[in-house]
Amino acid sequence: MIGAGHVATHLSKALQKAGIKVLQVYSRTAKAAASLAAELNCEYTIKPTDINPNADLYLFSVTDNALPNVLSNFPYKGVFAAHTSGSHSIQLLTDAGFRSGVFYPLQTFSKSIEPVFSTIPLCIEASDQNGLESLSQLASTISNDVRHVTSSQREIIHIAAVFSCNFTNHMYAVAEDLMAKNNIDFDILYPLLDETIRKAKKSRPALVQTGPAARNDQNIIEKHLNQLATLPDYQKLYNFISESIQSQSGK
Amino acid sequence: MIGAGHVATHLSKALQKAGIKVLQVYSRTAKAAASLAAELNCEYTIKPTDINPNADLYLFSVTDNALPNVLSNFPYKGVFAAHTSGSHSIQLLTDAGFRSGVFYPLQTFSKSIEPVFSTIPLCIEASDQNGLESLSQLASTISNDVRHVTSSQREIIHIAAVFSCNFTNHMYAVAEDLMAKNNIDFDILYPLLDETIRKAKKSRPALVQTGPAARNDQNIIEKHLNQLATLPDYQKLYNFISESIQSQSGK
Repeated sequence: MIGAGHVATHLSKALQKAGIKVLQVYSRTAKAAASLAAELNCEYTIKPTDINPNADLYLFSVTDNALPNVLSNFPYKGVFAAHTSGSHSIQLLTDAGFRSGVFYPLQTFSKSIEPVFSTIPLCIEASDQNGLESLSQLASTISNDVRHVTSSQREIIHIAAVFSCNFTNHMYAVAEDLMAKNNIDFDILYPLLDETIRKAKKSRPALVQTGPAARNDQNIIEKHLNQLATLPDYQKLYNFISESIQSQSGK
Repeated sequence: MIGAGHVATHLSKALQKAGIKVLQVYSRTAKAAASLAAELNCEYTIKPTDINPNADLYLFSVTDNALPNVLSNFPYKGVFAAHTSGSHSIQLLTDAGFRSGVFYPLQTFSKSIEPVFSTIPLCIEASDQNGLESLSQLASTISNDVRHVTSSQREIIHIAAVFSCNFTNHMYAVAEDLMAKNNIDFDILYPLLDETIRKAKKSRPALVQTGPAARNDQNIIEKHLNQLATLPDYQKLYNFISESIQSQSGK
């Protein structure tokens, strides 16, 4: 396991629990490497030259920014390697001289929250058919949702994930802040949040769009914009997204 | 029951099921009035002057735009009336000469999807204490979550609902459209959507914000903007919301 962050930690624990032996942890940070190795009861190193040469697979699970540098310091060529990134192409590993693959768990990971891997989609890709079969078998040991996804599809999925996870959470954050500023508990919105996601799953989200913008209720939109006058960031956001909804529904 | 749309239908059916007798349905649309009255096994009328004068409560559940007009044609003064609107003030009813109240179910209603009322927050308000107790008792017959909410708080809740329901759904719609354009099933994102909402409930959403904007990863942001070059609406939305996230996290 190359890396010892959130994804590396959750992933290597899940793999080992499923009977896959993690030989060794490499990280540039001794503390992180030691901590994960202790959890896995395996060796660790912070020196690239001490990385065990006998692994069946080298799994690179480091931040997108760090990956090129970690690859350039890796001592072996021709071995089988996969990365766990949503945005890097498989080509990055191929160009670095590996038999290459991708092993991307499509989920948001937090240190303190234990993920349920069985439901997490694992997007796999490989430079050859043997590699694809190996990654597929490996993925199946921890997830019931293994999908062959190309690098260009994975790029789209990553952008879609930004919209539906990161941007959605920002909408929640604005709503929660508005409520907090007026001493109203955010939890009053929970049933609405749940119903919104339930409806989006039952149909195409664009077909179940509701609210002032979708029904072109300019009175309510103007009223809301006026009420947000003291919060210009939120006012602009309200206006911009309302216009985007109106422009989409007009198509 | 004054009105026969989605909210009026679901609400009056839930109330009658809980043992509250709906005397009569009024709607300007004969077909809608007849249809709901048949479901409730009660009378209906389309003439304001034929509205039954003996109701304990007149519940106005019509669209925000229609409410002022429906009120001006109502034949009785001094009776107890409540509306179900998220955005209209209680004052609208008081000014129309009623003992007034608000009975606002905080949920998005669709014709074909049966709501579970027990979990829907009912926001009540009244112009006098007796009215508040009556509405509280009535609300408790169908929901386990009855809250006293003032008109000014309800306005904030309504704006927050636009952000966390309507705008969130628009983010889903963009994601789904991007996926569809590239022949990828939207359902691969479901576990991510579920986890996003779970994390937002466990903490303040702003504190669990993740993604390229939150970590100021300008490389990924630029890459995504380039990939959205052929979809300028989505590109602008991506850029605008990313900047909003960055401006919030900088505070």
